[in-house]
Amino acid sequence: MPALEAYRRELAYSYALGLFPALECVKKRPECARRLLVSSKAQEEKGLAALREACAALRVREEEADRALARVSGKDNCFAALVFEKFSDALSPDANHIVLHHPSDKGNLGTVLRTALGFGFRDIAVIRPAADGFDPHVIRASMGAMFSLHCREYDDFDEYRAQHPDRALYPFMLVDGALAPADVSPHAPYSLVFGNEGSGLPTAFSDLGQPVRIPHSSDIDSLNLSVAAAIGMYAFAQQRL
Amino acid sequence: MPALEAYRRELAYSYALGLFPALECVKKRPECARRLLVSSKAQEEKGLAALREACAALRVREEEADRALARVSGKDNCFAALVFEKFSDALSPDANHIVLHHPSDKGNLGTVLRTALGFGFRDIAVIRPAADGFDPHVIRASMGAMFSLHCREYDDFDEYRAQHPDRALYPFMLVDGALAPADVSPHAPYSLVFGNEGSGLPTAFSDLGQPVRIPHSSDIDSLNLSVAAAIGMYAFAQQRL
Repeated sequence: MPALEAYRRELAYSYALGLFPALECVKKRPECARRLLVSSKAQEEKGLAALREACAALRVREEEADRALARVSGKDNCFAALVFEKFSDALSPDANHIVLHHPSDKGNLGTVLRTALGFGFRDIAVIRPAADGFDPHVIRASMGAMFSLHCREYDDFDEYRAQHPDRALYPFMLVDGALAPADVSPHAPYSLVFGNEGSGLPTAFSDLGQPVRIPHSSDIDSLNLSVAAAIGMYAFAQQRL
Repeated sequence: MPALEAYRRELAYSYALGLFPALECVKKRPECARRLLVSSKAQEEKGLAALREACAALRVREEEADRALARVSGKDNCFAALVFEKFSDALSPDANHIVLHHPSDKGNLGTVLRTALGFGFRDIAVIRPAADGFDPHVIRASMGAMFSLHCREYDDFDEYRAQHPDRALYPFMLVDGALAPADVSPHAPYSLVFGNEGSGLPTAFSDLGQPVRIPHSSDIDSLNLSVAAAIGMYAFAQQRL
C-alpha cells in the first residue's frame, strides 16, 4: 500500500475530507472509493457509523491514519477522509450547462458546484487555466456536490464549443446590449458562461450569444463570482419552472 | 507612535489591507483614516498614487512598514494597508435592513456586505455571537463595502427588534408555510433575516414574520449563506424596481 501524498493535481486520486463529503462520495461514486481514513480521536457518532458501514459494504478498507489525515488536510481537526479515484464524465448534450472560464478561487469553484446542484444544473464545463475541481478544498466547499455532477475540464473555450455546438450561450458580462436575467427568454439547451473573478469574460464573448448582466448599483465594481453565478442560475431556473 | 498590533477584536482600530479596500476607506470614511502603511517593495502604480495623494490631502501619515504589514496581514504580498479607527452607525429606521443572525464565517460576512451594497441595502444588523465585521479578512472579502454601509452589532435579536419595532420581517428558513421570494409582496420598510451557516434560524423566527424559502432541489441540504443572502437580496430588490 503506497504512502498517501499531500494532494497535487497530478495525482490520480484525491481526498474527500470530513464526514459529509466522504459520505457523498460513497453514495454517489461508490466505484471510485478506495480507502477510508479515520482518526484515533474520532468521536463515535451517527455520520461516522454510516460511513464505516457503507465502506464495509463496498469492501473499502478502513485505516486508522492520524498522521496521513493531518498531512492531507493540513489541519489537526479532520477526523475522517475518503481516498477516491478521480473520474471524468462527458457532459450531456441535451442538458443546460454551466461554463466557468478560468475560475481561480477554490472556495468560489466549490460554492458554484454546490449551488449548481441545488438549481438542477448537473453539467459543468471548466475552461483551463482554472482551479482544480478535485482539490480537497473545492470538494469540501462543494459539500461533496462534485460527486453528483458531470464536471469536465477543457483546454480552451473553442474545445468546449466544438463538442457542444448546438446550444444557446448566455455570457454574463458588463457590456452594452446585455439583458437583465429576468428579461431573457432562454432557449434550451443553453449554457450560462461566467468569467474569471478578477477579469471577467473577454469582450469577444459578447458576440457568441446573448450577454446577460445582473443589475447592481455602481457602488460596487462587480459581484463576487459565486454570487453572480448563483443569481444567474436562480434566475434561469425560475424561468424553467 | 505605539506599535501596531496584529488585529484583535478588542482593538479600537483595524486594517484595510490592499489598495482597493484602503482607497474605499479613505473615500468613504476619511475621518477614520489614521496611518498609511506602504511596503518598500510596493510597485509604483495608479492605485497607490491615488491612495498616497488622498492620504496626503487628509494629512494621514505615510510610513514604510514592511514588518508591520507582514504582521498584520499574515502574508508577504500585502504592499499597502490603511490603519483606521472603528466606527459605529445607527441603522436608518426608514430603510430596508439585512439582519445576520450569528454569521460565523468571515468570508461569508464580507461577501454578504459587498452584495448588500450592490443591491442597495445599506443598513446591516449583525446579531452576536458573530464574525467581527471589522476583522481585516471581512473588510477584504467585502472589497471595502463595509465603509459605505451602516453596520451595527446587537447582543441578541430582541435588542434589534426593540430598536426597530415597526417593520415587516422576512426570515429565510426551510419551514412549512414559507413563500418563494418571487411570491412575496414586500411591505417596506422590511428586514431580510438570515441565520447561521450551520444551524440556520431558530424555529421561533417563523412566527415573527413571513418566512421565505429559496426553492432548490433536495440534492443539497442548503445553500451557502452568502449565496442564499445574495438571492434573497436580488429577488427583493427586483420587486422594488
